[in-house]
Amino acid sequence: MKRYLLAPGPTPLPPEVCEALAKPIIHHRAPVFAELLKGVVVDLKWLMRTENTVITLASSATGAMEGAVSNFLNAGDKALVVIGGKFGERWLELCRIYGVTPVELNVTWGEAVTVEQVRDALKKDATIKALYIQASETSTGVAHPVKEIGLMLKSEFPNILYVVDSVTALGVFDVRTDDWGIDVNVGGSQKALMLPPGLAFASISNKAWEFNKTSKLPRYYFDFKKEAKSHGEGQTAYTPAVSMTVALRAALDIFKRETPEKIYARNDRLARATRAAALALGMELFAPASPTNACTAIKAPAGIDGQDIVKKLRNEYATTIAGGQSQLKGKIFRISHMGYIDDGDILHTLLALEKVLESLGYKFEKGASLKVAAKEM
Amino acid sequence: MKRYLLAPGPTPLPPEVCEALAKPIIHHRAPVFAELLKGVVVDLKWLMRTENTVITLASSATGAMEGAVSNFLNAGDKALVVIGGKFGERWLELCRIYGVTPVELNVTWGEAVTVEQVRDALKKDATIKALYIQASETSTGVAHPVKEIGLMLKSEFPNILYVVDSVTALGVFDVRTDDWGIDVNVGGSQKALMLPPGLAFASISNKAWEFNKTSKLPRYYFDFKKEAKSHGEGQTAYTPAVSMTVALRAALDIFKRETPEKIYARNDRLARATRAAALALGMELFAPASPTNACTAIKAPAGIDGQDIVKKLRNEYATTIAGGQSQLKGKIFRISHMGYIDDGDILHTLLALEKVLESLGYKFEKGASLKVAAKEM
Repeated sequence: MKRYLLAPGPTPLPPEVCEALAKPIIHHRAPVFAELLKGVVVDLKWLMRTENTVITLASSATGAMEGAVSNFLNAGDKALVVIGGKFGERWLELCRIYGVTPVELNVTWGEAVTVEQVRDALKKDATIKALYIQASETSTGVAHPVKEIGLMLKSEFPNILYVVDSVTALGVFDVRTDDWGIDVNVGGSQKALMLPPGLAFASISNKAWEFNKTSKLPRYYFDFKKEAKSHGEGQTAYTPAVSMTVALRAALDIFKRETPEKIYARNDRLARATRAAALALGMELFAPASPTNACTAIKAPAGIDGQDIVKKLRNEYATTIAGGQSQLKGKIFRISHMGYIDDGDILHTLLALEKVLESLGYKFEKGASLKVAAKEM
Repeated sequence: MKRYLLAPGPTPLPPEVCEALAKPIIHHRAPVFAELLKGVVVDLKWLMRTENTVITLASSATGAMEGAVSNFLNAGDKALVVIGGKFGERWLELCRIYGVTPVELNVTWGEAVTVEQVRDALKKDATIKALYIQASETSTGVAHPVKEIGLMLKSEFPNILYVVDSVTALGVFDVRTDDWGIDVNVGGSQKALMLPPGLAFASISNKAWEFNKTSKLPRYYFDFKKEAKSHGEGQTAYTPAVSMTVALRAALDIFKRETPEKIYARNDRLARATRAAALALGMELFAPASPTNACTAIKAPAGIDGQDIVKKLRNEYATTIAGGQSQLKGKIFRISHMGYIDDGDILHTLLALEKVLESLGYKFEKGASLKVAAKEM
């Protein structure tokens, strides 16, 4: 049976990436690697729309998130943390572990934070030094207004360190790091960049480097300053994920060839199609007001366990989507449309979903999801 | 020109590993991944000769080294650190960054520490809680007597936490984690395990878990307890290096098929051949008394810069070996014989080395290195 992967990371690998991963390994201290690393950094900057320093890390994106706390703050510093899902909670946990005092801005899961809420929280406490947020909260399918927040911060709170987790945003939609004033922007390999997990990225602004100068939290493997210095010489502080870097070159070449604009437009088309399909089947979106184009979170119909939908799709149709995490387990399921995914993948998944829903006794008009999806594609 | 890679990591990838890396990606929360992870952990335990907990980490081995400090000690604790090369210095740096007080046991680079030196240092200061050492110090080509030290600790200092960096030892020679009383044993993917860099391992003993209970140092991505709990369920705390885990399965299958004994014997044969070859060319070994079988460090002949040898081999013979690091830069060069390397690779490299030495004006009997190497093979 042909396998389909529509989970919000890891996402399917294009053939060029598979080929790159299978290549004979190169030595990371050889000039050929230095050239490779410098090249991918140039193109990551291009994709992230930034002139800031960009580093790569041999880790999952969580490692870069950890570094985004440990490299810039001190114990006792206050950070405003937007918590509207599992990854917002990760920022909270990271702050706590390093003794940073989090000011929690809790948002109902499935909803986006508003610029007003952020402004109010910052106005209320002038000692807050940083803001931690997700561009796309994968666990709920919500896109937070990181652009609007960034522009507001720029004009009203220019000293706040603006840290954005763009892990499921980078490559999905246009993230304008510099225009939006993002000081530390974190990305990962296994989402829209179409690579396996194991490589993370971060961009660091001059303002962030100023924070770094006074930050005394312990860091070693995720020492951004050391990495930035090494990257400047085409090297990494510690042994890099060589094969992943070679594969990143292949993935960035796809972005250069197809153009980000066309890729973002496709993601948007597939996301709209998936949302329309869910509604056409009489289901509800979990994040109707501000959905991310990375993945669509759909509420499991009344009386049906979302995990059963996920399991049946996997076991009976070799199709992997994602269930809900933490408090959302069983309540939602998530279909990803980022990365190396096209209309055929989505149409197959909708058909399989219809069959699964039917087998679970759910009532709907057969083919309805495909009909509306086609209109959006 | 055919390319040869004989640097002490990354090492060449066997075809089975390349194939595994190129496979379509699987979802890390699917049952198939859980089964895969549980299986590789079983076989890592087998290879590491341990019944202790074993975890995998999506990072270079340095990340696991960092965790080997941050998960077990507290600021102000004293740790004895054996420093006889660049990787010993890494333990020292890690201790300092976390506020652990290092008691330095400096050894002349190129020499191994002795059991006596370790015993004396521990006797002198009863407040020392842990010992950090390398099984194989890659930067100098030295094998420290981790077996003898472990047996001494077991009988004389049973409360000392024994932490060994086995990154370039695991898979090179028999490292008996449990018999030698190693509490935390750290390994990496890109050495004798024949994988790209980006996956690290650690074994953790019950004694180490006791240390963990009272350790309050900050840790998140490298939180061993969280990882151990997740691994118990066939999961990882954060997104794992999926492709690397699939490739690890392929690499461990090679170990199962060829048997570690035969692999260790081959490494030993190739190491003896390389050492004999260096001597036959009138050069000196950098670590004559206790060389590691992972790589052979050879002193550059008088008047010749070791870096020139490395560069000429790379540029004229597409052969990558390693130069000296830090204070040894230019003074030594290193030929690795671990992993997917056989007699043909070594013989080619010796021939190319002879040609390079000749071009640099060094005098020796042509073919002498190949003749003696052949005798050892």
